[in-house]
Amino acid sequence: MKNLFQGIPENLPDEVFEELCSGQQVKIERIVSRGHTTPQGEWYDQEWDEWVVLLSGTAQLKFEDRSELVAMSPGDYLHIAAHQRHRVEWTDPDRDCVWLAIHFKV
Amino acid sequence: MKNLFQGIPENLPDEVFEELCSGQQVKIERIVSRGHTTPQGEWYDQEWDEWVVLLSGTAQLKFEDRSELVAMSPGDYLHIAAHQRHRVEWTDPDRDCVWLAIHFKV
Repeated sequence: MKNLFQGIPENLPDEVFEELCSGQQVKIERIVSRGHTTPQGEWYDQEWDEWVVLLSGTAQLKFEDRSELVAMSPGDYLHIAAHQRHRVEWTDPDRDCVWLAIHFKV
Repeated sequence: MKNLFQGIPENLPDEVFEELCSGQQVKIERIVSRGHTTPQGEWYDQEWDEWVVLLSGTAQLKFEDRSELVAMSPGDYLHIAAHQRHRVEWTDPDRDCVWLAIHFKV
């Protein structure tokens, strides 16, 4: 059996995206960040909806249509609609931020 | 923003199943157990595949086609194919066992 908090590289030059499971209209993905952010000026603009939960560490997201940042702690989750432009503004550089993202067609 | 570890009733006479998000071919569900098990002699036999992760507490699953129990700790995850008969044999009675289950059509 695998564990979401294991198998994390000691050195993490880039965010790590790992597909854990998928169906025709769903993709379950683990993302590990450690201080990584979306490159300046870039936005995620996704074809599918995403439901995402932060399981360890802390992070801040930014949505194009909201002025304030969204601060996330372990257990916090949200639903990002397809084409809702967003970016990862900040992740804790001192801890592994483990995200579980479910991408799906509505 | 909601949190997977909040909003858990103090008294938990039954397991709590809560749909957090869904699409046509996916359902994301939080399950909270505290000593609950699948009733004796009963098996889950599901139409859809399930990907499930235990996020707090400890538990033991039983699959009809395996003799040994599957012990789960926080972060452990597994993929249960549609119609793979299984049951929850044991959950920690002293802690909230928070599961995140993704049900999906392959």
